[in-house]
Amino acid sequence: MFMQRQHFSRVYDSELQEIREKLLEMGGKVELMIANAVRALLERETELAESTIAYDREINRLELEIDEKCLEVIARRQPAARDLRFITMALKVVTDLERIGDKCANIAKRVKELNAEPPLKPYIDLPRMAEAASGMLHDALDAFMRGDEELARKVCQGDRFVDDLNQQIQRELLTYMMADSAAISRALKINHISKCLERIADHATNLAEMVIFLVKGRDVRHASPAAGCPSAA
Amino acid sequence: MFMQRQHFSRVYDSELQEIREKLLEMGGKVELMIANAVRALLERETELAESTIAYDREINRLELEIDEKCLEVIARRQPAARDLRFITMALKVVTDLERIGDKCANIAKRVKELNAEPPLKPYIDLPRMAEAASGMLHDALDAFMRGDEELARKVCQGDRFVDDLNQQIQRELLTYMMADSAAISRALKINHISKCLERIADHATNLAEMVIFLVKGRDVRHASPAAGCPSAA
Repeated sequence: MFMQRQHFSRVYDSELQEIREKLLEMGGKVELMIANAVRALLERETELAESTIAYDREINRLELEIDEKCLEVIARRQPAARDLRFITMALKVVTDLERIGDKCANIAKRVKELNAEPPLKPYIDLPRMAEAASGMLHDALDAFMRGDEELARKVCQGDRFVDDLNQQIQRELLTYMMADSAAISRALKINHISKCLERIADHATNLAEMVIFLVKGRDVRHASPAAGCPSAA
Repeated sequence: MFMQRQHFSRVYDSELQEIREKLLEMGGKVELMIANAVRALLERETELAESTIAYDREINRLELEIDEKCLEVIARRQPAARDLRFITMALKVVTDLERIGDKCANIAKRVKELNAEPPLKPYIDLPRMAEAASGMLHDALDAFMRGDEELARKVCQGDRFVDDLNQQIQRELLTYMMADSAAISRALKINHISKCLERIADHATNLAEMVIFLVKGRDVRHASPAAGCPSAA
């Protein structure tokens, strides 16, 4: 009986570990998508944009796989409070990761269109935004895996920086559009990319808020900024 | 013993029922937000826009409440396969509803700005889009509650209609912007509202895809359009 329980516990631990590893794999692949979508823009590499769009299928596949694994573990192992909280949060984490994948595919679609036209302007703030958003995602997942509340709070604070960059880009694009109507169509596409990156940072913030929820066992999502993590707009 | 089990079962059923009712309440409130955000635009009612923004807090509160209730039921009742699938999907449903609430608040913010300027054009397609998106959300929740796969598939099909309206609005706004640079700032705000409505329809489609998942016990999310529900872009 003791041996059996030990065996059960080992299998169960390895199942939780598998969920963790799959989440990390998915996170790593989504980070790669962000990097590639933006590189395709900066270096005008249309093929890279196309492969980024196609790669979204792999992210979708991982979402389904992790969802199924989580449901299976809940149903068969009836995990206790803390593990249960981890698994149900994992179900929400994959949804955010999958939506980030969608955003990257959307960016890559606009990049394909932009690459077919002359460049409007050198990109300075967009790569900074992408780097910040990707870093936030990386840290949020890291915080999730380690239950690191402090790191999660750092992620939430980063959201303001990305929002400000997005505002700045939108203002700049508006002046381009006002000055030259031939720039409008391209400016709208760049605007769309900027908003996608801002949404990616929002998703990372959602993840970080969940981590604080997981660690504290209480919810800081939608708390007032003074009380915890500012909620993503 | 039998009596005890019966009592347990009644309490358990009423807990599941409570989750269902809270979800319907949240869905109804989110539908109201969509209607009010768009009415504030059409009738230039800035106060209604402001109360819509404030109302997002109520949606956020419901998200936390339902999340907690779901976790509690999973932990205490150890539900079997079908109920478990319902509850874990409910956890994802509230996330979508909450994000729809965010989108409504975003629409209302743009409405406030637009109401401070002269109207750019009469709105014809935006209210049609809002009505379609809201109807999709209503049907998706209805399908979720009743496990109605056919209705869920109908919701998925509606997404194309909303996407097409969004494309049409964007093209129309582009011509406005090209013709008159003084129109650009307002056109961008209307564009933003149109995209928010399109995202609301995407969330409804996500919900409908989950319903088919729940009913079938297999996943049609990310399936090819021929195989089931077209995935939201």
